Amino acid sequence: MRDRARRVLSQCARIAAFTEEPGRITRGFLTPPVQDVHAHLSARMEAMNMTTRVDAAGNLRGLWRPAGASGKRLLIGSHIDTVPNAGAYDGVLGVTLALEWATMAQDRKLPVPIEVIAFSEEEGVRYGVPFLGSRAVAGTFDPALLKLRDENGVTLEDAIRGFGLDPDRIADEALDDDVLGFLEIHIEQGPVLEAEDLSVAVVEGIAGQTRMELRFDGYANHAGTTPMNMRRDALAAAAEWMVEVETTARARDGLVATVGRIAAEPGASNVIPGSVTVTLDVRHLNDRIRTRVAKELAASAAAIADERGVLVAWTTKLDQPSVRMDDGLTALLLSAVDDAGFPAKTMASGAGHDAMVMAARVPTAMMFLRSPGGISHHPAEAVREEDVEAALKVGVKFLERLAAQVR
Amino acid sequence: MRDRARRVLSQCARIAAFTEEPGRITRGFLTPPVQDVHAHLSARMEAMNMTTRVDAAGNLRGLWRPAGASGKRLLIGSHIDTVPNAGAYDGVLGVTLALEWATMAQDRKLPVPIEVIAFSEEEGVRYGVPFLGSRAVAGTFDPALLKLRDENGVTLEDAIRGFGLDPDRIADEALDDDVLGFLEIHIEQGPVLEAEDLSVAVVEGIAGQTRMELRFDGYANHAGTTPMNMRRDALAAAAEWMVEVETTARARDGLVATVGRIAAEPGASNVIPGSVTVTLDVRHLNDRIRTRVAKELAASAAAIADERGVLVAWTTKLDQPSVRMDDGLTALLLSAVDDAGFPAKTMASGAGHDAMVMAARVPTAMMFLRSPGGISHHPAEAVREEDVEAALKVGVKFLERLAAQVR
Repeated sequence: MRDRARRVLSQCARIAAFTEEPGRITRGFLTPPVQDVHAHLSARMEAMNMTTRVDAAGNLRGLWRPAGASGKRLLIGSHIDTVPNAGAYDGVLGVTLALEWATMAQDRKLPVPIEVIAFSEEEGVRYGVPFLGSRAVAGTFDPALLKLRDENGVTLEDAIRGFGLDPDRIADEALDDDVLGFLEIHIEQGPVLEAEDLSVAVVEGIAGQTRMELRFDGYANHAGTTPMNMRRDALAAAAEWMVEVETTARARDGLVATVGRIAAEPGASNVIPGSVTVTLDVRHLNDRIRTRVAKELAASAAAIADERGVLVAWTTKLDQPSVRMDDGLTALLLSAVDDAGFPAKTMASGAGHDAMVMAARVPTAMMFLRSPGGISHHPAEAVREEDVEAALKVGVKFLERLAAQVR
Repeated sequence: MRDRARRVLSQCARIAAFTEEPGRITRGFLTPPVQDVHAHLSARMEAMNMTTRVDAAGNLRGLWRPAGASGKRLLIGSHIDTVPNAGAYDGVLGVTLALEWATMAQDRKLPVPIEVIAFSEEEGVRYGVPFLGSRAVAGTFDPALLKLRDENGVTLEDAIRGFGLDPDRIADEALDDDVLGFLEIHIEQGPVLEAEDLSVAVVEGIAGQTRMELRFDGYANHAGTTPMNMRRDALAAAAEWMVEVETTARARDGLVATVGRIAAEPGASNVIPGSVTVTLDVRHLNDRIRTRVAKELAASAAAIADERGVLVAWTTKLDQPSVRMDDGLTALLLSAVDDAGFPAKTMASGAGHDAMVMAARVPTAMMFLRSPGGISHHPAEAVREEDVEAALKVGVKFLERLAAQVR
């Protein structure tokens, strides 16, 4: 297993070298280095006797069908695009691990057809919309997206054509019914597994998100001449509310709430802020809890503002429901984790993933690997060899159990 | 008195028309409309048999010496420069009222020489340094200031020469000893008198100021994948501290503390803020209290940050002591307020004024007039006719008492 783990990591390093920017890992949707990644991975897939193709959305797909096996196939994969100045593992590790899982299935002659998918787009960097690759496979790609333009004015449609693909065929890429399910392996991109000293976790679901913008309107006034009891300080109101946001989130298991952006006007050191705009991001696996907390926090903003003669208005920018992973496939994955000798840790994903999109079409499960330092979207992003080994051990057990089920 | 009050207000309106920008009141230091203001006020002064001159710092000065009176003179005045898009009364009202006080002294044949000063610069807009006019008169003008450049690259020295004055003579403008004291009348620019339904107040002193900048350094992280108990959220730390700032200030009489500017990095709605910079402005008439509170608030920032694994650093940008008005002249002014039938309200000024600079050279007193809505530095800045009348009634009593003292 150690050699397999090293191969997985060495493949990630090799793929990291295919980049738009020398010295940094940056690989946008269907940019030139993606051709190199496809060439590299296709060669590997073909050496594994997989049938390869790049679909109309730019996803590289390698299918291995064991001799004599005619049953439904298991999809395994993740994405190969990156954020600017990325690390080497976000997405890519899920693809290289998928290939290694497939070789293990081959070596063990397991009668499970496997299709490895390297999704073309997940980060939403080039067109501001994420999951372009998995949307196509899940059959949820909206053709209106083809008119989007990147920062150079190139439409999504032209980018696809420029890569030698036919955007009119994207609708045809929606999965057939000949599928057991989809499994994604991904780095956690958070600090939980490291804090609990665990290699892997099974993802129960992707948390739903509420994003709001709140504006507190008080009255800008002279910081020297306005006594404390005559102020309508929008920033003081926002501060009291931000403390409330944190207290509320801390009191509820699995909930995260974040004020990430703040702007105070007029923004002079000697003027009481007249208006403050803040963002609020609330996430939880349970949509009922998330929705209730978002409402509570809006009500608390109103109460705090009211007591101060400040007005507050909020708009909901995003209300995205959580996505539960498939019970059966998740149970199978958890058993495999247990079989492999690891604690059967489950957790929610606070970030979106291709698995979220795929779950709308096929039974989907997801596994996280520990992120050292909780760091991601950064060149310092890392993964431990022992955790890759753990993921491989889980893979063997998972594929064996699946083979036993379909046999 | 009503006619006098109306004349004072009509003079303010007349002067407001001398502006750099049509449709707005904007009159920077020694800009062309200042020539018009000088011409207008000089004509008025000369009609009052005053000796007029523009001193080397651009201050217009009108001296009236009653026949036979050889004693020390009383200075009365304020400034005639404005902030951009100003109101009509900040500064100017103190000059027009000073002239009206002088006419009342003349009409009553009071044997007190009066010099009315229209200071050329108080707001600090054109050269970023306030009180240029009163510094010259108080003898605290630093010649190094002459090298300052405005936004068009014009040095202060050249601006003065361009106005037909000799900057080398500024040092000679420092007041002689032939002065009883200086009195400034100014709009409050705050809400206190309106809230207490008072026309005027006597200013005990100008509050000292501490200005600090604080930087909270936590760790920027994913808003979805970082549990609440694993965050080092710089904005959450700053929010808790801002609540503490307000609570501390509210608990101390006469203290104001303001966080006017805030910036959070990286400033994305889905990223926990890694660093936050805020300003703190603390003012109190008692320097000991102000200094202690500033220290307490810095200590509280350190404690809050420490508990969260956040670092905090602060720098003191300004530590300006308070300036007490002269006891004798202030007592005289308070008696005059009482004589005139108004409550003897005293208060601190939270903003700086020429009186603060003059106090370093001569006995100085100051009177505030109610600011409707507490509004200033805004075209909606106003003053009530009845309050101008009140200031005139106080003036008569003050001048009579002063005359009785010097007779």
